Amino acid sequence: MHASPWIHRSFTAPFTTTGRSALVPPPPWHYAGWLLNVAFRFDAAAAAALVPPAAGQATGRGCVHFADWQATTDGHELLDPVMAQYRETIVVLELERPDGSRCMYCPAIWVDQDISMLRGLLQGWPKKMGSTWLTRSLPLDHPAAAPCRAGSRLGASLAVKDRRVLEARATLTGRPGLPLGFLAQPTIGAVGWPDLRQPRQLPEITLLRADIQGRVGGDWFDAEATLHLLPHPAEDIGLLGELSAEQASAGWLGITVTGALDV
Amino acid sequence: MHASPWIHRSFTAPFTTTGRSALVPPPPWHYAGWLLNVAFRFDAAAAAALVPPAAGQATGRGCVHFADWQATTDGHELLDPVMAQYRETIVVLELERPDGSRCMYCPAIWVDQDISMLRGLLQGWPKKMGSTWLTRSLPLDHPAAAPCRAGSRLGASLAVKDRRVLEARATLTGRPGLPLGFLAQPTIGAVGWPDLRQPRQLPEITLLRADIQGRVGGDWFDAEATLHLLPHPAEDIGLLGELSAEQASAGWLGITVTGALDV
Amino acid sequence: MHASPWIHRSFTAPFTTTGRSALVPPPPWHYAGWLLNVAFRFDAAAAAALVPPAAGQATGRGCVHFADWQATTDGHELLDPVMAQYRETIVVLELERPDGSRCMYCPAIWVDQDISMLRGLLQGWPKKMGSTWLTRSLPLDHPAAAPCRAGSRLGASLAVKDRRVLEARATLTGRPGLPLGFLAQPTIGAVGWPDLRQPRQLPEITLLRADIQGRVGGDWFDAEATLHLLPHPAEDIGLLGELSAEQASAGWLGITVTGALDV
Amino acid sequence: MHASPWIHRSFTAPFTTTGRSALVPPPPWHYAGWLLNVAFRFDAAAAAALVPPAAGQATGRGCVHFADWQATTDGHELLDPVMAQYRETIVVLELERPDGSRCMYCPAIWVDQDISMLRGLLQGWPKKMGSTWLTRSLPLDHPAAAPCRAGSRLGASLAVKDRRVLEARATLTGRPGLPLGFLAQPTIGAVGWPDLRQPRQLPEITLLRADIQGRVGGDWFDAEATLHLLPHPAEDIGLLGELSAEQASAGWLGITVTGALDV
Repeated sequence: MHASPWIHRSFTAPFTTTGRSALVPPPPWHYAGWLLNVAFRFDAAAAAALVPPAAGQATGRGCVHFADWQATTDGHELLDPVMAQYRETIVVLELERPDGSRCMYCPAIWVDQDISMLRGLLQGWPKKMGSTWLTRSLPLDHPAAAPCRAGSRLGASLAVKDRRVLEARATLTGRPGLPLGFLAQPTIGAVGWPDLRQPRQLPEITLLRADIQGRVGGDWFDAEATLHLLPHPAEDIGLLGELSAEQASAGWLGITVTGALDV
Repeated sequence: MHASPWIHRSFTAPFTTTGRSALVPPPPWHYAGWLLNVAFRFDAAAAAALVPPAAGQATGRGCVHFADWQATTDGHELLDPVMAQYRETIVVLELERPDGSRCMYCPAIWVDQDISMLRGLLQGWPKKMGSTWLTRSLPLDHPAAAPCRAGSRLGASLAVKDRRVLEARATLTGRPGLPLGFLAQPTIGAVGWPDLRQPRQLPEITLLRADIQGRVGGDWFDAEATLHLLPHPAEDIGLLGELSAEQASAGWLGITVTGALDV
Repeated sequence: MHASPWIHRSFTAPFTTTGRSALVPPPPWHYAGWLLNVAFRFDAAAAAALVPPAAGQATGRGCVHFADWQATTDGHELLDPVMAQYRETIVVLELERPDGSRCMYCPAIWVDQDISMLRGLLQGWPKKMGSTWLTRSLPLDHPAAAPCRAGSRLGASLAVKDRRVLEARATLTGRPGLPLGFLAQPTIGAVGWPDLRQPRQLPEITLLRADIQGRVGGDWFDAEATLHLLPHPAEDIGLLGELSAEQASAGWLGITVTGALDV
Repeated sequence: MHASPWIHRSFTAPFTTTGRSALVPPPPWHYAGWLLNVAFRFDAAAAAALVPPAAGQATGRGCVHFADWQATTDGHELLDPVMAQYRETIVVLELERPDGSRCMYCPAIWVDQDISMLRGLLQGWPKKMGSTWLTRSLPLDHPAAAPCRAGSRLGASLAVKDRRVLEARATLTGRPGLPLGFLAQPTIGAVGWPDLRQPRQLPEITLLRADIQGRVGGDWFDAEATLHLLPHPAEDIGLLGELSAEQASAGWLGITVTGALDV
C-alpha cells in the first residue's frame, strides 16, 4: 500500500519533502536597506537593445540604485545574518507604456548572494553576481561616519567579474530628497527559462511586476551626484552610452514582496 | 513602418537583442576539471525526503564529487578565466529505476560561480552557492605537489554559508581507479520554477538527464578515503545520516553537455 | 650629480617615493562602526596559553565584539568604500596588571580586509582573516530592520577558513546598555616580527596600547545574548573552554587612533 | 614557585604557548604551482619611484608572474586545502647591482590569502590583497583543457579592490620555454615595519633575498603573450607606463624557502 504520495515542499530547488534546503523560501519576502539612488538621463534610442517594445518605449530617464540590504522571511535569517545580508546594484529605465502611463523596467542588476540572485530571476530582476560597495551613513558626528546631513560624502561602486562597471559619488545637500527610480514608479521585468530539452530555442519571456507592499521609511536625503559607466565585455548596459546624473537621494527603506502581477 | 520585430538573443536573463549579457550562453558547454570522487554507503531509507519516487528508489549507495572545473563555450572564457573557472561539490545517490535499471540522482550540489549555478538549475543539478576546496595534483616530485602516485594525500572540503558541510581526505594507492558516481552512471535531476503570480503554489518538477557527450580522460587514480558529513541548519543532506566511504578515485575529466533529455 | 637622495614615503610596504601604494597610510585612522558586544565569563586559568604574564593575569572576564566598520584617513576612502569598509570579530580578555589596575588584552581577532589586517598587526591586534556577519539595526519599523528597541533580535557569526568559530544571538531589552570590553578599559596587545635571516628564532614581543582618541557615540543599547565558541583546528581561542555570556550591548561608535603607547 | 617562564611558540601573531594560532609557521615553506610568466620591457627611468637605488638600477626589463600555488610546511595543509591554496600576481623588475651583477626586485605583488600575505611581507615581497585568475592547463585533449601543446591559449588577470590592473593572454608555441623573471635571477625585496609609538617616522627598509632551495620542475612551455597594465588609483605600478611583452612561458614549479639572506 502506498499510503501517501511523495510531495516536495520546496519553492525552488533542491526539491525535498521538508523544503528546508530550498534556496528561496516562498514570499512574503521582507527587505530593509540603505540605498543611494542616482537618477540619470541618457539617449533614449540607445535602450533599444535592452527593452522589449512590449514593455514600452524608453524615455531617456533612468536610475541606478546601490543598495545594502537585509532580508528575511519569518525573522530567522536576522539571527544568522549570512543568510540575510547582501548588496546589489540595480539599473532601471523609465518607459512610456502603450497606454501612455510611465513605469520602470530593469534591464540589469547585480547582487552578491545566491538567495537574492534566484529570488530576483523569479521576479523579472535579471540578477547576475557582482560586487557592490556603498558608503553607509552612521548616526555619529565623526570623520568616518558620513552622517545624514549637508556636506557628507558617499561613494558607491559595482564590479562584475573583477571589472568596475559603475561608480558614483554623492554629496548630501541637507535638503529633503525624492524617491527615485523603482522607488517612484512601478517596475516591471522579464522572466524566462530555457528548456534544455530544446536547447536551440530561446525562452519566451513574460513581463511581470513585483507586488511590493508595506513600504516604510522613505525619508530621502537629497544629494548631488556624479555617475560613471565603464565598458565591460559581457555587459550590454554599456550600450546606454553616457549616463548624465541628475537628481540623487539616499536613505533607508523597508518593503515586502508578496508575489508578482501580470503587466 | 516597423520593419523587424524585437527579438532577444539571450538564453537566460537579462534578455537583450545582442544576447551578450545573458548569464548562461546556450550549449554546447565544455567542461574540463580535476575531481576527487568518494563513493559511500548510507541507510537507503534515509533518502526518502530527498528523492522523488518517480525517479526511483535509493539503493544505499552514493558518491561525493569535489571538482575544480574550467568551462567554456567557444573558447573565449579561457582567455578571461574569471569567466571559466569554478569549484563545486556534487552529491549523487544511486537509484533503482522502476524498470530495474540503475542511475544516479543529484539531491544537492554547491558551486562558487553564478554562471555555473544557473546552468546547473537548468539541467536539474540543484545548485546553491558553497565554498569548495580540493587539493590539486601537480606533475612534480615536491612536498607541495601531491603528484599522482602511491602515498600522495589529498584533502577536500565544502562550506555553505560559512559552515563546513563535507570534509574528505584521500590517499592515492598507486593503483588504477574507477569512475564513480555520475562518472559511472547516467544522472538525473529535477527542474522546476515557481511562478510568482501564484506564490502559494509550489512548482511542478520535471525529471531530466543531462546529455553528456565527448567524454575524454578518465584515467582514474585509486584512493582510500574518509568522508565526514557535518550538520547544517539549511541543508537536508544531513538527513542521510552517516556516510561510510567506500571506494575513491581522483583524476582529470573532460565532458561536453549539449542539452537534456526526458527521463 | 645626485642632487637628492631617494626617500620612500610609505608607512608600510611597498616602499615607493610617492607612498601611494602603501597598504596602510600613517595615522590618524578614523573608524566608525556598528558593534555588538557580548561580555563573557570563563575559567581564568584557561587563558594561560594565550596571555603573556608580563601583560597581567586573566580575571576570568572577557568580551567578544562583532563590528561592522567604516575607516578613513583623510576622507578619500569614503568615496570609494571598497577601501573603507570591513567587518571583524574581536576577542579581549580582562587582565589584572602587576600594579593592580585592570585592562583588556587581545589574544585573537579576525578581519576581512588587508588594510585592516596589517594596521591591526602594527597595533598589537593579532589579526588574521575571517568572515564576520552581524545584523544591522536600521531606523525603520519593519520586519527586516531590527530597529534599536526592545525585542529586536540580532545575530552574529565568525568563520575562519570556512569553519564557524563564534556565534552569538542577542535580543535588545529597550534599556540603556554599557560599554563593554575594549570600550570600557584600555586594551593592550603584543607586536612582534620575525627576522627571516634568523628563521629559527621566534620574535620578541612588545606590549603596546593603541592610543585611542576622540571617541564619539556610545549610546549603547542593552541586550541579552548567548554566545557559542566552536572548536577550530588552527585557533587557540578554543582553549578558553566554555564562554558564558553575561551582559551584552549594541550601538554605534566613532574613534580615532593616532599611534600607540608603551605599556 | 614559578617553575618555568612563559614562552610563546608563535612565528607570527598571535603569540601563544602552543604557537598553533600563529598565522605563519616558521620555514621551511614548500610551494608548488602553475605559473604564467610574461617578460616585458619598459622605460627604465620610469622605475625610479619604485626601486631603492641601494638595490640597483632598473634595466628596463621585468616580468609579471601569474601563479596558482599550493603551499605547505609539514604536509598538513594539503589535507585541508583552504590552508594551502592561493593565487597571486608578482611583478619583478631587473636591476643592475652596484657590482655590475643582475638581479630582480619586487616592487608589487598581490595575493588572495592571509597566510601568504604576511609570509610575503617577511621576505620582502610587498604583498597586498588582489584577485588573480589564471587559465590552467589540464592533461586532456578537450576544448576546456588548454593542454600544454602548440596553439593552446591561456588568459590571466589581476584585480585590486575591484579594479582590473593587469591582463595577459598567451598562446603556447609548442617549443620549450625559458624560466623568466624570478625564475631566472635571484630576487630581492624590501622589508620594513613602522613603530606606532613613533607614528610620524617612516620605517627603515632592509633589503633581503629569499633563500630558495630545492627547485623542481621547470620544463617551461614557450608562449607568445600580450600584456596590459591598467591605471589604478592606489597602485604605483602604473608609473611604469606601457609594458611591452617580450617572451612568455608557462609551466609547473616547486620550490622551498628556508629563510632570507642579506643583500
